[in-house]
Amino acid sequence: MQSDNPTAAILVIGDEILSGRTREGNAHHLAGVLTATGFDLREMRIVADDHDQIVAAIRALDSSLGGAYDLLFTSGGIGPTHDDITADAVAAAHGTTVEINDEARALLQARCDRMGVELTPNRLRMARVPVGATLIDNAVSAAPGFSIGRTHVMAGVPEVFRGMVDWLIPRLPGGQPAQSLSVEVRRGESEVAEELQALAAEFPDLSMGSYPFHDERGWGTNLVVRGLDGERVAFAMSELKRLLKL
Amino acid sequence: MQSDNPTAAILVIGDEILSGRTREGNAHHLAGVLTATGFDLREMRIVADDHDQIVAAIRALDSSLGGAYDLLFTSGGIGPTHDDITADAVAAAHGTTVEINDEARALLQARCDRMGVELTPNRLRMARVPVGATLIDNAVSAAPGFSIGRTHVMAGVPEVFRGMVDWLIPRLPGGQPAQSLSVEVRRGESEVAEELQALAAEFPDLSMGSYPFHDERGWGTNLVVRGLDGERVAFAMSELKRLLKL
Repeated sequence: MQSDNPTAAILVIGDEILSGRTREGNAHHLAGVLTATGFDLREMRIVADDHDQIVAAIRALDSSLGGAYDLLFTSGGIGPTHDDITADAVAAAHGTTVEINDEARALLQARCDRMGVELTPNRLRMARVPVGATLIDNAVSAAPGFSIGRTHVMAGVPEVFRGMVDWLIPRLPGGQPAQSLSVEVRRGESEVAEELQALAAEFPDLSMGSYPFHDERGWGTNLVVRGLDGERVAFAMSELKRLLKL
Repeated sequence: MQSDNPTAAILVIGDEILSGRTREGNAHHLAGVLTATGFDLREMRIVADDHDQIVAAIRALDSSLGGAYDLLFTSGGIGPTHDDITADAVAAAHGTTVEINDEARALLQARCDRMGVELTPNRLRMARVPVGATLIDNAVSAAPGFSIGRTHVMAGVPEVFRGMVDWLIPRLPGGQPAQSLSVEVRRGESEVAEELQALAAEFPDLSMGSYPFHDERGWGTNLVVRGLDGERVAFAMSELKRLLKL
């Protein structure tokens, strides 16, 4: 698919994904949001709660550090415990250090006051933010995410992550949302390969995907046409249906 | 967690994951299998159906090519259509070319004979395998995966992927399976941070994780202790419960 949309990557930090304990869902959610708002998501990475690994991934992915993509979104590792090392790793990648952010401290203090609890040193850890970062709003539990360079750092708890995405994405300059149409056929992938290839040659500006599946009725394939121009996508889909005699 | 287990990475190839259309499940499944069989999964990557991106990822991840991990497993992009480019990319990364593999052709021919259909050029595409690769059995639909160097290439269709994993993993030299114990507490993460840090200092050979969640009853945290020695893990968990007065 040809596109001038900003490119993006997602970095998920979490041993619990790599151990198989938790199935990744935050990157999946953000992927759908990015596609709908005109960002071209090119890569997801999931790494362990390991300082050097996180730093290396950020440098490889954030274009402001010489990395590959216009924007980088991260999920996970910004809570109050000893294994929450994302803020330090992001700071190191961006060549800065972490400080107690005054605005973040005020947000946490206000929440503690409302709940009638003390802002303990552990709770205050959630105000540790790289010097020079701006905050990302947390509508669920006050502890903010933050943006530095082209890296946007969000929480791992799904409700909090989604709230941060809802706040952040409309504030970023997006591009043209991708359009897609799909059709399910009860044929194996090799029985539609020729038609799909002919279509791809006829519409080099669009992307064609075929996703085989297997269920109780046997093999089928979902065919998806994607592009930025909705009319072109619709035209290509009607052409595909004609080729497949649907 | 200290471990001499072989390290591993998973590379998923698929635009449909990056567009948000499909939620990744194959890497999640394999992650659980690897943990249970003594491999130390350190990274997952999901990249687009893009030749250069796949080649770069394989080189970065497969230690036989100077990459970071002992073993690399891939999922996706080995079907019969024009967008199935994994075999070519794997061959390029490993400095070889793709050929019609005789053994794979025989498997496909036998299946076509059983089904009374012709081995068309599109179906024969599924026998395209890098020169020097060995095959991975496909119990579901005959079209094989393959291993070359330390890269193990499997299908994207979940049933087929799982079948290939079941065949492949017992044939690889694994290590010591990781053991883990977990406990759920109805407290926020910052209310257990201190105890967890004390425990981590006392058991440097184990890994401690805290995974906050939010449900209709409010905040809770899952605490997980992981390690290779089951007795140590059990001892650390009882120590944690004592510290938390559970």
